[in-house]
Amino acid sequence: MMNQPLSIRFLLACLLLSLGRLAGAQPPGSPPVVSPQVNTDNTVTFRLLAPAAKDVKLNAQFEKAPVAMTKDARGVWSVTTGPVKPDMYPYSFTVDGISVADPKNSSIFPNEGFQNSLVEITGSPPLVHTIQNVPHGTVSYQFYTSPELGQRPVVVYTPPGYETDTKTTYPVLYLLHGTTDLEETWTKVGRANIILDNLISQGKAKPMVIVMPYGRAFPVISKSSGSLRNWDNLQAFKKDFLGNLMPFVEKNYRVRKDKDSRAIAGFSGGGGETLYLGLNNPDLFSWVCGFAPGMLKEEFERNNATAFANPALTNQRLKLFWIGVGKEDMLYPVINDYLKVLDDKKIKHETLISDGGHTWMNCKLYLSTIAQKLFR
Amino acid sequence: MMNQPLSIRFLLACLLLSLGRLAGAQPPGSPPVVSPQVNTDNTVTFRLLAPAAKDVKLNAQFEKAPVAMTKDARGVWSVTTGPVKPDMYPYSFTVDGISVADPKNSSIFPNEGFQNSLVEITGSPPLVHTIQNVPHGTVSYQFYTSPELGQRPVVVYTPPGYETDTKTTYPVLYLLHGTTDLEETWTKVGRANIILDNLISQGKAKPMVIVMPYGRAFPVISKSSGSLRNWDNLQAFKKDFLGNLMPFVEKNYRVRKDKDSRAIAGFSGGGGETLYLGLNNPDLFSWVCGFAPGMLKEEFERNNATAFANPALTNQRLKLFWIGVGKEDMLYPVINDYLKVLDDKKIKHETLISDGGHTWMNCKLYLSTIAQKLFR
Repeated sequence: MMNQPLSIRFLLACLLLSLGRLAGAQPPGSPPVVSPQVNTDNTVTFRLLAPAAKDVKLNAQFEKAPVAMTKDARGVWSVTTGPVKPDMYPYSFTVDGISVADPKNSSIFPNEGFQNSLVEITGSPPLVHTIQNVPHGTVSYQFYTSPELGQRPVVVYTPPGYETDTKTTYPVLYLLHGTTDLEETWTKVGRANIILDNLISQGKAKPMVIVMPYGRAFPVISKSSGSLRNWDNLQAFKKDFLGNLMPFVEKNYRVRKDKDSRAIAGFSGGGGETLYLGLNNPDLFSWVCGFAPGMLKEEFERNNATAFANPALTNQRLKLFWIGVGKEDMLYPVINDYLKVLDDKKIKHETLISDGGHTWMNCKLYLSTIAQKLFR
Repeated sequence: MMNQPLSIRFLLACLLLSLGRLAGAQPPGSPPVVSPQVNTDNTVTFRLLAPAAKDVKLNAQFEKAPVAMTKDARGVWSVTTGPVKPDMYPYSFTVDGISVADPKNSSIFPNEGFQNSLVEITGSPPLVHTIQNVPHGTVSYQFYTSPELGQRPVVVYTPPGYETDTKTTYPVLYLLHGTTDLEETWTKVGRANIILDNLISQGKAKPMVIVMPYGRAFPVISKSSGSLRNWDNLQAFKKDFLGNLMPFVEKNYRVRKDKDSRAIAGFSGGGGETLYLGLNNPDLFSWVCGFAPGMLKEEFERNNATAFANPALTNQRLKLFWIGVGKEDMLYPVINDYLKVLDDKKIKHETLISDGGHTWMNCKLYLSTIAQKLFR
């Protein structure tokens, strides 16, 4: 609301310094550092103001290795890469050995273990996860209560029309994030809401509610002691999921409560949770989808006990058992072993063996694939 | 879902490296770096793994100046500060001149201009912004459409009971963030939803809908050319606010549409927008609240034209005209000048001159103060 170029620049610099105490803030009067800048040829220019740094590299998930950046006379490091295949990618900078998110980019990867920024290269025609002018669903942040774990965050997607079609009930997809991710990662990095908005508007997916809880009982490894991890965490999460989360959802949302109207899917550590919860609770879920699901070979029998005990009944109970994984994913070998066990036991399943690795680019592909299969 | 300590540690390290390419990730087997750690005496320990760094400082908004951190043999820099007065504070580290958020803390300050982390020191009894086991409202992320500006994000708080009391209509508070903030800043840093949950549960605030749009027409200064700034931005934002946002809210939410049921409030740059929109649209808003509102003395007349033209009518129209500012705020002198002009013109107003500066700690105080006055 101020139009004096000099005074406003000075005042804004004061505000930034006061609010953020931003080391490396540009002095008043210097041109702004813009990063990332997606160019018309789909190359991307990244910039970082770091006059004192000796070495700055770009780590982008569309590059196979870190990319060196070069410094100009002002101390702005930059590099232009690509053309980049349209998608949304995580990236960070390494500044003298320290990993930092891009301070000029407010689009952040929600995570407990690292901090990355996100860059979107839009395509033409728009990709399935591109925000478009179609009817949008609502993404709601809620809390539910666990007697043991306290106030638990969950993000819920309701499809377009949910608020007005108040007689309609919907099928529900429980969608779990990976280890170190957060309840926001599926919307902010996986664009689950946008993918469903677009597929629903094209008639390619059934309107559904998507429930994205914080997918661990206890905070990630960096915050918890050894005894709170892994099997203990999975048991406590199962208890919370079945005892608190599902009742909260079924009380507060107009979701259908039959097993054919319930799906569960998840990525990485959340994919492991998905298979464990889905395959061992056949009365609850008819649709079970693992996206590069985390697993260990020595735990196949334990984690798949119900399904392995009666493959014929498992096949009868499940409408879809789906596994997606990238050929470059470090979990590909163990998942491949798992798929062979499923074949041996004649447990029906569909697979999508994609290009790429253990990435959220693949997560978006997998979600947009299974969303078109669910509840049909 | 894995309980082999060595293999899972290795696999998780691989996952972290694959997902985040996290420079400085701790090697498998080393104890986790926990940061921040709030101790029982309300001191706080901050830690950062940065073996190659030469100088690391803590910048915390409860400290007057940066605090030196010291390095241990593993390369973990740390410092313990306080005891700290219970509140939620932004902080960052400066590593060899580069400002970084805390990579072990997933609680991030949403902002276009800098990246800070948040640390909460809870009090006893709990503070007004502490998440408690009370009925919670819903925080919804929505898009509305601007013909000129495209798909626009807005965050909407609906109070507990909104979904079930479907005959009830609610008063509405439009709540604007500061320059460089985002539509999420009022919930994630200002805890607007939690403050209202707590005040409503205690009967101290009326149930209300709170609308928190992205508070600019154009992205913040760092992303826009000179011509898109300031007055042009304010005019374009006003057009979007009145022409797109308010109609979207009134169509999609059960809000009352009389001026006595509409309030507007905002912080810093959003406080300037608040006064401009609120005081020049007296048929729309009966409640106008500025939190350290951004203003320039040479713009007093222009930005307050309607109110200054007829003080008596202004007093008649407004049920509350409220200004809060901290004595250490760099805007305190100009706001003080503005308050003298209001006195001279006999325009009625309430003030809260608090301790502290241009901070979100004060924003929480101001919101919790005015929330108890609105719609009474």
